[in-house]
Amino acid sequence: MAEEVKLFGTWASPFSRRIEVALKLKGVQFEYIEENLSNKSPALLKYNPVHKKIPVLVHNGKPVAESLVILEYIDETWKHNPILPTDPYEKAMARFWAKYMDDKLWPAATKVVVSKGEEQKAVIEEIQEQLKTLESELKEKKFFGGESLGFVDIAANIIVFLLVAQEALGLMEILTEEKFPVLHEWYQRLVDDAVFKECVPPRERHLGFFKARFGSSTASK
Amino acid sequence: MAEEVKLFGTWASPFSRRIEVALKLKGVQFEYIEENLSNKSPALLKYNPVHKKIPVLVHNGKPVAESLVILEYIDETWKHNPILPTDPYEKAMARFWAKYMDDKLWPAATKVVVSKGEEQKAVIEEIQEQLKTLESELKEKKFFGGESLGFVDIAANIIVFLLVAQEALGLMEILTEEKFPVLHEWYQRLVDDAVFKECVPPRERHLGFFKARFGSSTASK
Repeated sequence: MAEEVKLFGTWASPFSRRIEVALKLKGVQFEYIEENLSNKSPALLKYNPVHKKIPVLVHNGKPVAESLVILEYIDETWKHNPILPTDPYEKAMARFWAKYMDDKLWPAATKVVVSKGEEQKAVIEEIQEQLKTLESELKEKKFFGGESLGFVDIAANIIVFLLVAQEALGLMEILTEEKFPVLHEWYQRLVDDAVFKECVPPRERHLGFFKARFGSSTASK
Repeated sequence: MAEEVKLFGTWASPFSRRIEVALKLKGVQFEYIEENLSNKSPALLKYNPVHKKIPVLVHNGKPVAESLVILEYIDETWKHNPILPTDPYEKAMARFWAKYMDDKLWPAATKVVVSKGEEQKAVIEEIQEQLKTLESELKEKKFFGGESLGFVDIAANIIVFLLVAQEALGLMEILTEEKFPVLHEWYQRLVDDAVFKECVPPRERHLGFFKARFGSSTASK
């Protein structure tokens, strides 16, 4: 059967970028539909009436929403090049850390771009505490997923967005090699990965996005 | 191999109650350790150093945290009496709705017990919008999980807590039969389920808990 796979996303969202990474790792052909979040399409509202948010994956007419839910769906539907480990305990650990990205790192990353001065400094410290936790989880592994990138690495694309925001807004350096040698090396490996790097927003446009949207709130250097 | 299964929880938490339901549905023997959240045990801090929260399941010495992650782990480890569907799409839907309980219903349910007056009324309206969404998802099904209770029903135990809070604090009626006939029937079925009802906090103690903790914030009748 010819498969029809559509992804509704926006170019600057780490959440729809995650789905692109997974589909490309699997070699699944898909149609990408760029959404304008200030004027959402009737199709998006139809496919995700509950949250009215991207990303939505539509597979043979059936929609799936929520990026981590979509990643699991992709992994269970196209089983080659697995994203999640098969061992239940390893899988639980991957789910735990991916959830950590969304529940801890993402709220902090979105706060840092809208805060100023002392408040911003405090958020950066909070992020660095989180990175410390991730550094010690990663230890000597090449990727969170082991030898190749997996579920947690894909979910960790939030860090790409954080570092571009940092540069665009002139924030103090967040992921220094000195403080986070393990995570720093992992990050280089991640953005050098052939598939992952195809799913990173174009650099200049991304910098411009942060400057235009949050540029007035820079303060802590 | 003799299995060692421990659950660190607290009696009034819907999140540790979820794990009890799943373990009992599977017939897995476990040791329950009641935690005092104002004086957490060294064991809890050791097993969940990242969040320092209950519930934690410790299976043969290996800890798993985060209630939905634990439920999936249980379902993959003890495969009989499945909690999640096997079809990838059905599974994605179950994950979507369980996440809805945690991301939407739970924040509203915790807000309702600490808010007053107009603010509280607004939260109750928000909850009723959410229940409307759940009502239309449930439709003619017996349980969210189909013929028997599953992942989403277990995660929906937040509603038990909400209704006890409502009664203890004298809030306006949230889940009326008139407004939510489908959900109202489902709820009766849920709390009548032989396993589920074993994992609901003792009624009087639970009412007392809400009265003692949040009793001063009652207002909207």
